[in-house]
Amino acid sequence: MSGEIAIIGTGMTKFGKHPDLSLEALGFEAAGQAMRDAGVRPADIQAAYCASALAPQLLGEFTMGQKIFWELGINKIPVVNVENACTSGSTGFYLACLAIKAGAVDMALVLGVEKMYTRVKKILDAGATDLETKLGFIVPGTFAMRARSYISKYGLTPEDLALISVKNRRHGFLNPNAQFREQVTVEDVLSSPMIADPLTRLSCCPQGDGAAAVVLCRADLARSLNTRTVNVATSVLMSGSYDSPPHLDSWPTDMRAVEKAYGEAGIGPEDLHVIELHDAFTIAELIHYEGLGLCPAGGGGELLKGGHTSLGGRIPVNPSGGLLSRGHPVGATGVAQLVEIVTQLRGEAGPRQVPNARVGMAHCMGGDLQGDTRSVTINILTV
Amino acid sequence: MSGEIAIIGTGMTKFGKHPDLSLEALGFEAAGQAMRDAGVRPADIQAAYCASALAPQLLGEFTMGQKIFWELGINKIPVVNVENACTSGSTGFYLACLAIKAGAVDMALVLGVEKMYTRVKKILDAGATDLETKLGFIVPGTFAMRARSYISKYGLTPEDLALISVKNRRHGFLNPNAQFREQVTVEDVLSSPMIADPLTRLSCCPQGDGAAAVVLCRADLARSLNTRTVNVATSVLMSGSYDSPPHLDSWPTDMRAVEKAYGEAGIGPEDLHVIELHDAFTIAELIHYEGLGLCPAGGGGELLKGGHTSLGGRIPVNPSGGLLSRGHPVGATGVAQLVEIVTQLRGEAGPRQVPNARVGMAHCMGGDLQGDTRSVTINILTV
Repeated sequence: MSGEIAIIGTGMTKFGKHPDLSLEALGFEAAGQAMRDAGVRPADIQAAYCASALAPQLLGEFTMGQKIFWELGINKIPVVNVENACTSGSTGFYLACLAIKAGAVDMALVLGVEKMYTRVKKILDAGATDLETKLGFIVPGTFAMRARSYISKYGLTPEDLALISVKNRRHGFLNPNAQFREQVTVEDVLSSPMIADPLTRLSCCPQGDGAAAVVLCRADLARSLNTRTVNVATSVLMSGSYDSPPHLDSWPTDMRAVEKAYGEAGIGPEDLHVIELHDAFTIAELIHYEGLGLCPAGGGGELLKGGHTSLGGRIPVNPSGGLLSRGHPVGATGVAQLVEIVTQLRGEAGPRQVPNARVGMAHCMGGDLQGDTRSVTINILTV
Repeated sequence: MSGEIAIIGTGMTKFGKHPDLSLEALGFEAAGQAMRDAGVRPADIQAAYCASALAPQLLGEFTMGQKIFWELGINKIPVVNVENACTSGSTGFYLACLAIKAGAVDMALVLGVEKMYTRVKKILDAGATDLETKLGFIVPGTFAMRARSYISKYGLTPEDLALISVKNRRHGFLNPNAQFREQVTVEDVLSSPMIADPLTRLSCCPQGDGAAAVVLCRADLARSLNTRTVNVATSVLMSGSYDSPPHLDSWPTDMRAVEKAYGEAGIGPEDLHVIELHDAFTIAELIHYEGLGLCPAGGGGELLKGGHTSLGGRIPVNPSGGLLSRGHPVGATGVAQLVEIVTQLRGEAGPRQVPNARVGMAHCMGGDLQGDTRSVTINILTV
C-alpha cells in the first residue's frame, strides 16, 4: 500500500493509573486529540476501529467503539471492535488500512484503549481455559524460559539483559506520556523483586490505563488536509504457528512478518531510522532485534552493549521508553507505538527526537505461547 | 463489490446446549465443515476472522481465533478477533470481504462462535457500566417498549405479535440445526411466562451454544473451485446514532444501511426471494420488515397476517426458524444467517427450501439501546 495511505493525526493520554477516568473517557480524550490534530470533524470519519484486549473481561464492556465514537459525534459508519491480544491496536490500524485500500472509505479513525488497574487480580485468569496456563505456563514464565535459553546460548549475563531496562527508562525519562519516568541502573534492575528468574520486576513492563488514536486517510486527500502527514509504506498482520520443538531464542513469526513488510515497502532493516518494538520484557527486545533483521542471530547483545539502539546510536529502538517505561495498557500499546513513530517522523519528539528520522517501524507481538506467538504486526511509516 | 466475491463453503453446528463441547471444539467443527464443503485445504486460507460477542466475558477467552485456527492447521496469516454485539459474526464477514476487495488476500474463512449456557448468570451484566442498564433498561425491556409503542400506534394486538413466533417455529421445525423444533400456537406464546409485558418467553429468542462458518474467495477463483458458489452482491456495516426523541417504532439505522446495500447491489426489496433477519424478539421482526423496505410504515402486521413472509408466501422471512427457533449464540448468529441464505440459494434447504431462490438477504442488528442500535449489517447474496 506504499503511497496510498497517510496518517494525518495522532492523540494519546498519558499512560499510567487513571482511577478517576472511565474507559470511555480515556478513549474520548485520545480520539478527540487525534481528530483535532488532523484538523478533521466527526463527520469526516468514514470508518472507526476500537481495539481493546481486556475490557470485556476486566470491565464487562462490549461494543465500546460505538459508545466512545458516539460521544464524539461519530455515527452512521462502519464501527468494528477488535481484539488481538497485545496486537489489538495495531490490528485495528491494519484493518483501517485495508478499508481504505479497498476503496470502501477515504478516512478512518483507530483507537486503542485499556483500563487495567481496575481489577488487576483477574488478568492472569486470561488463559484459564488452557491446560498450559493451569500448569503455570503464564507469560512471565515463558519469557523467563526465553531469557535463560538466549543468554546461555549466546554467552550473555543478567547484567546485559538489564541494560535494556536501563536504556528504555533513560528514553522514557524524556517522554511526558510515559508511566515511569525515573531512570534506573543495572543494579536497580537486578535488585528489584524477582518475578520469574532471571526476570526481575524492572525487567517486566508494567500494566497501565491509557488510550492512543490515529486518523488515517487516502494519501492524495492527506496532502490537501495537513502538512504534517506521514505515509504508510506497509501494514502487515501475521499469526504465529505451532513449531516443534518450540523456538525459545527466536520468533519465527517476527521473521516471516518482517520479510513480507520489507518486501511490500521496498525497504530493508538498514533503511530504518527509528523503531518502536514490543519490549514486554527485557529479553523480548533483544530477540526482536534479530527477528526484525537488525543483527544476525546472537548479535543482539553486541547491538545493545554498543549503544547502537540507544538515542544517539545508529538505530534507536523504543525512543518513547517502550513498554518498559510507558507501561502496557494492552489494547492501546500498538497504537501508541504508531503515535511515537509519527511524532518522530514529523520531527516533533523534542528531547527524544531521532535526528532526520524519515523511515520508522512499529512492531507489536501479541501472545507468547506454545513456543511462538499469536500475532505479529509490522507497520512501516515514511516521510 | 458486486461480482467480485463468492462464498464457496459453509458449516455450522446444531445450535443448542453443548455442555460437553468447548468453545474451541464448536468453532473447530463449523470451520472444518466449511473448508470441507468448499473443498479447500488449511493452506488455502489466507486470512481468518473469529467473531464472538461474549466469550471474553463469559469464558475469560481471548485470541480465540488463533487457538481454533491453529488446530485446523491454519497459521502464518492475518487472524482477527472481532466483537460487535449481535453483529459480531456478520462484521467478521464484512471484514473478510474488504480484505479480498483490497487485494490483500484471495480466500478467507469467517467463524462465528459462542458458548452461553456455561455462565448464563453473567449475561445481564453485559452493560453494567452504563447508567441506563443499572436503572433497568435492559434488552427485553427496550424491546417491550418498542412492542407497546408499535402495536398501539398501528392497531395491532399481542395475538398479532405472537404470529411471528408461530411462523418462525413452524419454519424451525424444518431445520435440523435449530435449537427448538417444537411448533407453537398463538395460545402457547401468550400463555408462556411474561418476561417484559407484552413479550412472553416464547416472544424472545433463546440463548445458545453454537458456531457457524463460511469460506469466501475472489469470484473468479470460485468458479474454478466449486460449482455451488454464491455471489456477494454487497456487504454493508453501519453504526447507529443517538436520535432524540428515540425512534421506538422504527430503526433508522436499518433504513440507512439497507439504502446503501440496495444501491451498491443494484437490487431493491422487490427483487429479494428470501430473507434471514434479526428476530431477537417478535416485535423486532415486525419493525425490520419496514426498515428493510418490505412494506410501508405500519404495514408489517398486514404482511405478516397475510402469510406473505411465511414459507410459501411472497417473500419468506427466516426460513431457518430465525433466532426465535435457532437460538442466539450471539457471535455465531450473523454467520448462521449467511449459511442459511447460501443453503437456500444453492437449492439445498430441503423441506424449508424457497423455490427458485436466487437473491437473498441476511440482516443482523447488534445492540438496541438509546432508541437506536449499535450496528446493522446487510449482506445481499445472489446466484
